[in-house]
Amino acid sequence: MTYQDITTSTEGRVLTITLNRPDRLNAWTHRMESEFRKAVESAEADENVRAIVVTGAGRGFCAGADMDILEAGAAGAADTTIPSPPASSGATGIQANYAWRFSYLLRVRKPIFAAINGPIAGIGLCMAVFCDFRYMAEGQKLTTAFAKRGLIAEHGISWMLPRLVGPTHALELLLSARTLVTAEAASLGLVKALPGEGFLAAVQALARDMTDNASPRSIGVIKRQVYDSLFQDLDTAWRRADEEMQASFASEDFREGVAHFLEKRAPAFTGR
Amino acid sequence: MTYQDITTSTEGRVLTITLNRPDRLNAWTHRMESEFRKAVESAEADENVRAIVVTGAGRGFCAGADMDILEAGAAGAADTTIPSPPASSGATGIQANYAWRFSYLLRVRKPIFAAINGPIAGIGLCMAVFCDFRYMAEGQKLTTAFAKRGLIAEHGISWMLPRLVGPTHALELLLSARTLVTAEAASLGLVKALPGEGFLAAVQALARDMTDNASPRSIGVIKRQVYDSLFQDLDTAWRRADEEMQASFASEDFREGVAHFLEKRAPAFTGR
Amino acid sequence: MTYQDITTSTEGRVLTITLNRPDRLNAWTHRMESEFRKAVESAEADENVRAIVVTGAGRGFCAGADMDILEAGAAGAADTTIPSPPASSGATGIQANYAWRFSYLLRVRKPIFAAINGPIAGIGLCMAVFCDFRYMAEGQKLTTAFAKRGLIAEHGISWMLPRLVGPTHALELLLSARTLVTAEAASLGLVKALPGEGFLAAVQALARDMTDNASPRSIGVIKRQVYDSLFQDLDTAWRRADEEMQASFASEDFREGVAHFLEKRAPAFTGR
Repeated sequence: MTYQDITTSTEGRVLTITLNRPDRLNAWTHRMESEFRKAVESAEADENVRAIVVTGAGRGFCAGADMDILEAGAAGAADTTIPSPPASSGATGIQANYAWRFSYLLRVRKPIFAAINGPIAGIGLCMAVFCDFRYMAEGQKLTTAFAKRGLIAEHGISWMLPRLVGPTHALELLLSARTLVTAEAASLGLVKALPGEGFLAAVQALARDMTDNASPRSIGVIKRQVYDSLFQDLDTAWRRADEEMQASFASEDFREGVAHFLEKRAPAFTGR
Repeated sequence: MTYQDITTSTEGRVLTITLNRPDRLNAWTHRMESEFRKAVESAEADENVRAIVVTGAGRGFCAGADMDILEAGAAGAADTTIPSPPASSGATGIQANYAWRFSYLLRVRKPIFAAINGPIAGIGLCMAVFCDFRYMAEGQKLTTAFAKRGLIAEHGISWMLPRLVGPTHALELLLSARTLVTAEAASLGLVKALPGEGFLAAVQALARDMTDNASPRSIGVIKRQVYDSLFQDLDTAWRRADEEMQASFASEDFREGVAHFLEKRAPAFTGR
Repeated sequence: MTYQDITTSTEGRVLTITLNRPDRLNAWTHRMESEFRKAVESAEADENVRAIVVTGAGRGFCAGADMDILEAGAAGAADTTIPSPPASSGATGIQANYAWRFSYLLRVRKPIFAAINGPIAGIGLCMAVFCDFRYMAEGQKLTTAFAKRGLIAEHGISWMLPRLVGPTHALELLLSARTLVTAEAASLGLVKALPGEGFLAAVQALARDMTDNASPRSIGVIKRQVYDSLFQDLDTAWRRADEEMQASFASEDFREGVAHFLEKRAPAFTGR
């Protein structure tokens, strides 16, 4: 598969997707959108991939929607605005929540790590809040941007950000649209800070550690349980957990999970 | 408009409402209730006001319900207890959540800053948790108070407090009814601490900074999006965000938001 | 009442339940399950008990399900797996959420303090997240364990943990199944750290302080209000709060709550 606005690379069982328009701080485009989704969906289907890392080429992560698109929009060219979101395509119940531009990331059965190497703004941040984990290189800048452009809280960020940092911080970041540096974003719990030196390798190592030592089958089920729980009452979640518990007793990974413990050796999970 | 239990003043585009019964640490009364609401509703209707700051006269913020009222209540005079809440007046769906004594603050399309200059307790705290931002002067005291009076978690605080500080801290504050000083309230994320010296001016400056640099139209829409999200699933919130995004493309504030960025100048938003 | 897998003791109005299989780090069994529930239900019915503390005998708190049970399960002996959860027994509405293995703790009208004296894992942690407060001795270890055993997020933890520490930390703890020491668990807000020296006595003192100074009636109502709020919109919670407020005005504890304040003396609440 060759892409134009992203690149991908695999090391071990970790796939890295790099947003690749470094001359525009990797500003988001229609093409980047569809290539990114294609790369994530291939990774989900590939049993050799156990974790996904998303980062940016050059000195940026993602500066938001390409300003050319916004300018054209401000000039009245409606169809050149940021790509219109896919309808939720007939999905119903909890599934409808996972049918949108970035929210499909929540249902991917592999952990997704945003490695925020440089400036992140607007739609770039909307994407990142739907990744499972956010690491950010020290001294970089983050902003929601929308309220300074006369825009609104786009692409699900008004829903997800309060769940990540609470309603007060979410309001403050969205209403002020001010710029935070890494340390402040970390103090809110929005990201974890890591040194800029060796940053991407450090995030890749965290992705590898997590997925080397835990059952991929367990990870896939649990990730879904946690996000589903945001739409469920406790009774429904518990019922579902009991069904999944019973199903896990019949899995290879459960047998291996007990065996490697009793044999005091590293696990060799198959994901089945 | 003249008031008896509050005063108001405007500096630039920031309205300050001061609870004004300093000899009673601004204990809440029926009259304060209706005057406060009138002042907030006038501010919402006034396009020259972009932010609201709430503070207390003298050394207190709001010590809770006036003890005379509670005493009369304990003596059996039911109709002298703290003012009975307005019914939710036929509002349905999400709107019903915004129809109560303090919860109408959540739907005011301007940011509301609680400037907690002194002791805050009981119904005063219930009001403050429905403000968007809470700043508290260092060294002041805060308590939920209810469980020490044999009362319960009144006026929506049992719902809002767990969303601001999580269920564990909310339980601890409500069940123990103990008194916290500013630093501890800040460590829970319930308030942000600021020095007592120049306190009110500092909060007013934060209100001014937020609203000078962001579109009032964006702020109004986003504030509603964030609170609505607490009652919505992600699918519904996303659908709404897409509608609001389309609407914003046709706004003056969006054109100004792009223009001031490209022209590298301060924005001059109109709110339209 | 004599028990085999737990012990109980009362000091003042604080009941301490001790998980008591110290040679197995108090690993959870069928019998411990039913004895624990019986002890909690007796404490709820006993008006001399105002708070419950849960701890472990010896150097552990609860190491999870007994490995003998898991081994048998991995070998295919289905009925020897960890005890099958009680059905939610016809409870409907919000009540259904409180009908499960550990979630009944949420509706007990007395505060429950987990005193995590030593290692806590798996089902032991599931129990602890349904206690109201979690204190943990410094330098001890905590792990969700499931993903390393090829299991899933059992017994409601996928629902409760994101509400205690947010979805990002919950995912991280559940997907990695890594081991945290007390200080890190405390930094996430999952527990509060206390010195190992005098640990249990310190938690018992906290339980005593909370319940000596607040109305037991208020505590019972407020605890229910806070957990119910996780399943309600604000309109419903407010309506309920107003009903409870009216009911509290007729209580002995309200009269005492006002009286002890005006008389500047310690309260003598009856809970009625």
